[in-house]
Amino acid sequence: MKTELNPDIKTALEALTKREVRHVFLVACGGSLSIMHPGKYFLDRHSAALTSDVYNGDEFVARNPRKLDDKALVILCSQTGTTKETVRAARHAREKGAITIAMTLDGQSPLAGAAEHVVAYKAPYTTGVPIDAADSNYGVLYMILAGLLTQTDRIDLTATLLSSLSHLQPAIDKAHARYAETFDAYAEQFKGAPVIYTMASGANYGAAYSFAICVFMEMLWINSQAIHADEFFHGPFEVVDKNAKFVSLIGLDETRRLEERGRDFLHRFGSSENILTLDARDLDLTGIDDRFKGYLVPLIFFDALWKFAYKLAAKRDKVMLEDRRYMKKISDY
Amino acid sequence: MKTELNPDIKTALEALTKREVRHVFLVACGGSLSIMHPGKYFLDRHSAALTSDVYNGDEFVARNPRKLDDKALVILCSQTGTTKETVRAARHAREKGAITIAMTLDGQSPLAGAAEHVVAYKAPYTTGVPIDAADSNYGVLYMILAGLLTQTDRIDLTATLLSSLSHLQPAIDKAHARYAETFDAYAEQFKGAPVIYTMASGANYGAAYSFAICVFMEMLWINSQAIHADEFFHGPFEVVDKNAKFVSLIGLDETRRLEERGRDFLHRFGSSENILTLDARDLDLTGIDDRFKGYLVPLIFFDALWKFAYKLAAKRDKVMLEDRRYMKKISDY
Repeated sequence: MKTELNPDIKTALEALTKREVRHVFLVACGGSLSIMHPGKYFLDRHSAALTSDVYNGDEFVARNPRKLDDKALVILCSQTGTTKETVRAARHAREKGAITIAMTLDGQSPLAGAAEHVVAYKAPYTTGVPIDAADSNYGVLYMILAGLLTQTDRIDLTATLLSSLSHLQPAIDKAHARYAETFDAYAEQFKGAPVIYTMASGANYGAAYSFAICVFMEMLWINSQAIHADEFFHGPFEVVDKNAKFVSLIGLDETRRLEERGRDFLHRFGSSENILTLDARDLDLTGIDDRFKGYLVPLIFFDALWKFAYKLAAKRDKVMLEDRRYMKKISDY
Repeated sequence: MKTELNPDIKTALEALTKREVRHVFLVACGGSLSIMHPGKYFLDRHSAALTSDVYNGDEFVARNPRKLDDKALVILCSQTGTTKETVRAARHAREKGAITIAMTLDGQSPLAGAAEHVVAYKAPYTTGVPIDAADSNYGVLYMILAGLLTQTDRIDLTATLLSSLSHLQPAIDKAHARYAETFDAYAEQFKGAPVIYTMASGANYGAAYSFAICVFMEMLWINSQAIHADEFFHGPFEVVDKNAKFVSLIGLDETRRLEERGRDFLHRFGSSENILTLDARDLDLTGIDDRFKGYLVPLIFFDALWKFAYKLAAKRDKVMLEDRRYMKKISDY
């Protein structure tokens, strides 16, 4: 059972006590950016003292918001710590006097070198060594933000978060078992699909975004888009027919009714065999506090869906999920 | 030449002088939401006093951010004023004590009734009557925000904005002539495409989003996604091959280099006949001040691209751009 924040998070939070923080910028690219959306959701729901923005690393540098000053905290994330836009964003933030915290797997990476504070995390599937999901990018981000809220808003959610995170990995393991047969069936059904959409809202939106751009597009070369569950009704839903393929995420945060409405429409005008629905009510979340279920569900969905990606890859022409055309194959772009 | 703000904008701004505004929520759905992105870009670039968020109407209500209080200004937009999520968002914001300004075509609509202040705008292509783009949703939003900045940040950009807006319609008219032949060629080239992506960053992102979800998906039933020009390199670019179809917007704001980088990659690994590039450097922007070019270019692109949508529709099975499967055909969802 986790009862204390990781030491590097404690050190970063201790440094923050000496500074006035008014605004939080959550900055990264691609899959690392996707976790920042639920981070902002958490701040929006809980903080009266802090405002926040989520930006792609290079958008952040070019946009150069006036709010980026010595009262800003900039939290950056890059798995390898080598994402050049994110490294540049860290340098830019420090030049502007902001406090910077870099989240990365590699404490010796360029991003770690560029930021004032470094917080390590672990990633599943990259090293082959099983991890505890509490130490994943999501877990570590929530720990930083919960610790920050204690300082800025006098709300102490850290103990509840830590005990909930201690029950996360078992919940993920059970989800894998829960979805195994479902994923077999949908991998067969989706194997020839030229387009697969993902749909979610609130804290789940980042997981839907990451699955669309990093898994379907990057790894499987399948056309995709993460559609916000209410925006769906203001344009995107017109592409729905009996053949349209969707992954529909139904979580446990305050926006659940948006996700349910989207799912209900899909089932009414699409075909259920083409709508892979993950509903968090089907999960065993024993030990996870009600206040954190909505925030931890996207980790469970995303981890579970990795297995679906491998099953889908095995049934398509593109059997190797690791194969790329451009990423890390060419470098001069 | 426009030299004064519209009377309803003046009235709303006058009311704001009696209130302390610290945070701006920009709230709408679909196409109306798309204009809020450049609105936030404008605030980010210019305001040290204000923070802001862009939210879909129903996400805003369900998320219910703690920052929504009597120091919040909530600007909402709905063309017809009947978008139920946006009407509900206005009511929710008023219950929380926030100041509300509704932008709509119809001053008698439910949205107008729900908000404290109403600002009218005009829309091209909906009534068949030509409008001056200065009075469009974008134009009116920028006027509200420029007026607000004068109060909160002592920056007076209103006169420059108004004179720039006065030169907008001629710039749009010239853009239509400039792109006519290009659009003919690309409509022929894109007519059979099952998927067309749009790409942009910064102030242009909203126009790319709106074209993807409201035009390609809603009106033409073509699969699409608005890809952020740097996020492109963190996943989406792996779908690029010689057949991939893209609409690439290259504007004049601070993020231009991101859009250029995306375009350069597309031309290197895709085929130029499948990449419809709109570069604002090709436009005649006479009379538009350099400080507003970046903000007004997306209006020009979006207006110009309407003609492309009609040309594309004429060449596809789906010849009627007005035809819908669900929107306004069924109402019980």
